[in-house]
Amino acid sequence: MEKFQVFDGDITSPKGFKACGIHIGIKKKNKDIALIVSDVLAEGAAVFTTNKACAAPVKLSKENIQGGKAQAILVNSGNANACTGKEGYENAKKMVEAAAEGLNLSFESILVASTGVIGVPLPMDTILKGINKATKVLSYEGGLDAAEAILTTDTGVKKIAVSLEIDGEEVTIAGIAKGSGMIHPNMATMLAFVTTDAKIKGEFLQKLLKHAVDRTYNMITVDGDTSTNDSVNAMANGMAENAMLDENHPEIDKFKEAFHYVNEFLAKTIVADGEGATKFLEVEVQNSKSFADAKDIAMSILNSNLVKTAFFGEDGNWGRIVCSIGYSGVDIDMEKVTVYLGNENAMLKIVEEGQGTAYKEDEMENILKHKKLKILVDLHAGVEKAKGWGCDLSYEYVKINGAYRS
Amino acid sequence: MEKFQVFDGDITSPKGFKACGIHIGIKKKNKDIALIVSDVLAEGAAVFTTNKACAAPVKLSKENIQGGKAQAILVNSGNANACTGKEGYENAKKMVEAAAEGLNLSFESILVASTGVIGVPLPMDTILKGINKATKVLSYEGGLDAAEAILTTDTGVKKIAVSLEIDGEEVTIAGIAKGSGMIHPNMATMLAFVTTDAKIKGEFLQKLLKHAVDRTYNMITVDGDTSTNDSVNAMANGMAENAMLDENHPEIDKFKEAFHYVNEFLAKTIVADGEGATKFLEVEVQNSKSFADAKDIAMSILNSNLVKTAFFGEDGNWGRIVCSIGYSGVDIDMEKVTVYLGNENAMLKIVEEGQGTAYKEDEMENILKHKKLKILVDLHAGVEKAKGWGCDLSYEYVKINGAYRS
Repeated sequence: MEKFQVFDGDITSPKGFKACGIHIGIKKKNKDIALIVSDVLAEGAAVFTTNKACAAPVKLSKENIQGGKAQAILVNSGNANACTGKEGYENAKKMVEAAAEGLNLSFESILVASTGVIGVPLPMDTILKGINKATKVLSYEGGLDAAEAILTTDTGVKKIAVSLEIDGEEVTIAGIAKGSGMIHPNMATMLAFVTTDAKIKGEFLQKLLKHAVDRTYNMITVDGDTSTNDSVNAMANGMAENAMLDENHPEIDKFKEAFHYVNEFLAKTIVADGEGATKFLEVEVQNSKSFADAKDIAMSILNSNLVKTAFFGEDGNWGRIVCSIGYSGVDIDMEKVTVYLGNENAMLKIVEEGQGTAYKEDEMENILKHKKLKILVDLHAGVEKAKGWGCDLSYEYVKINGAYRS
Repeated sequence: MEKFQVFDGDITSPKGFKACGIHIGIKKKNKDIALIVSDVLAEGAAVFTTNKACAAPVKLSKENIQGGKAQAILVNSGNANACTGKEGYENAKKMVEAAAEGLNLSFESILVASTGVIGVPLPMDTILKGINKATKVLSYEGGLDAAEAILTTDTGVKKIAVSLEIDGEEVTIAGIAKGSGMIHPNMATMLAFVTTDAKIKGEFLQKLLKHAVDRTYNMITVDGDTSTNDSVNAMANGMAENAMLDENHPEIDKFKEAFHYVNEFLAKTIVADGEGATKFLEVEVQNSKSFADAKDIAMSILNSNLVKTAFFGEDGNWGRIVCSIGYSGVDIDMEKVTVYLGNENAMLKIVEEGQGTAYKEDEMENILKHKKLKILVDLHAGVEKAKGWGCDLSYEYVKINGAYRS
């Protein structure tokens, strides 16, 4: 029997969550304000960008999440309110004040996120009017509108919903995200918002979210740049009325698995939508001394421009993969390293004991024609592992990010 | 009065150095074996790649430099002898044995370096015959041939020579290098070889070289990938007959400056020859708490694909620069950061207190038209600083490294 079911839902699928997504005029067209609200005060959890140039809304949300509770998440797209100094911080506060007033909630119970152009002051009149309007159009069917309203350069909505049984009660976990595509004149952001009606201990939810972020959103890369606004927020309102979830709950593993699935799905969807990407790459590093070692090697491979351009050229360049493993900073014995390259159908051993194998060129060419490729690295050094996801580096990437003037 | 003079010389300009560069058939055409030999046993110093997948010649040279002495450097291009396992190591030994026999020198006095395709066994018959031939055609005018023989995808020879007076004696320092351009099917390498007739303490030469490498070759990036073969070797044979140079020599600063100039010149020449580069970027980070902080920030900016593509698009994207400073991992107060962008003629303040300034768009456009650009970052946090050099990311880069099949 399946542990959980994926279904065509969104962040308003869990019990007691309303949302909306509307166009208020920050962008010329398309929805640019999203509001996600729980009927009751929820357990809140959040993980933010480590970028020292973090944006004003990130600073404010870090303060508001301190209590471990949240009832609403306010998001605007079109302007990141980053590198905007003290005025930007005051503007983020005004946004939350407007939402608190319209929703009749406490200031501290509201998280805020922004994405879009950085270094440009927010159009506050437009935004405050828009927030007020948003508080009036919330609905239990508004999840999809919210999913649309947080997008910037994304080519499509990123959403997922799963349901499972805990203590005989139906529990739903859902999420939406926007991608880390880069846009002129400045970088966009990776945002993800997760809602669930599960009853779960607040500090345990934070632990689960941090663990999931480290293994999903922090394991994807389009160009290795960490934005000023990256945020992942979760709200759990307990309305499924299961027995309180924590380490000791008999069905906790089932919940963990479903919660992780939601975040991994959103993370992979972001990479698959990476700018100019023609290949989707999954790197799995096995039998490492630690998770950190496996993670560093996976990200070293995925961030290598030489590996990325090789895959764009449909060249199974094992030498560049070995090289990127070698300079990952991880202390390994290259003579023990095995590397496989393939897809869901076939895996080809391309490196053994640190050296290239005599694989058949035509087999390699058949594998490289696929859009989804997998690199499996076995370090033969321990029992830990990590998975990461990335994409190739194409002309289109350079064009989108560099040659928009021509 | 100038401290040192740059002149049109090469590695055979210092007294007592012979060299040659010949074509023996590792490559289809062009010189592929270089030999640099001192008339007397010299003080030797070397710094090697930190890549765990370091090549066989690197492993062997690390052993031979242990004694701190060297009399010859043997280099082949066309094949990197990397990821070639135990056979590769044995082949590197055979190369040194052949040179030792032909030159009548001890095995330990010879350093070896290779560059080119990796993962392919060396054509040993060709190479051993070639080495024997090379030992017979050494000359005091062979420096330029050697400079040519170490090249791979480089578009031109990289050489420099300077002379200065120490204790009234003329001392000459010279160097050659090859670039870190990437070549199908695998990565090439950064190699540099420095010769000088200065009399200098061995361990002091090693200290000077390490210091120079950290501030020159380790401060350049074309795509951030560290090769399996990177090596910088230096020989000082003492034939200038100056008084022994060490920390306490009254003219040591003059020598240090000249020695540093040689290495910085070669490093910058390598970057200027970066594949597909249309812009040459110098980043200087000032007033940091430590050199390491300044270095990490400079390299974070220079390795950012978003910054690189922005400059390719002639877009002075201060937001991407601030972002790459923010995720450098260095603990800084962004509110104190100032950033200038410009060239030798003009520097434009684009960021103040972490925020964009109201610079004139046309001034920015004029600056961005130049091929050589400079980014100056002031952290207002300390007294240390670092300089780094890089290039933009162009269609051509993607083509050279990814689309060579089309």
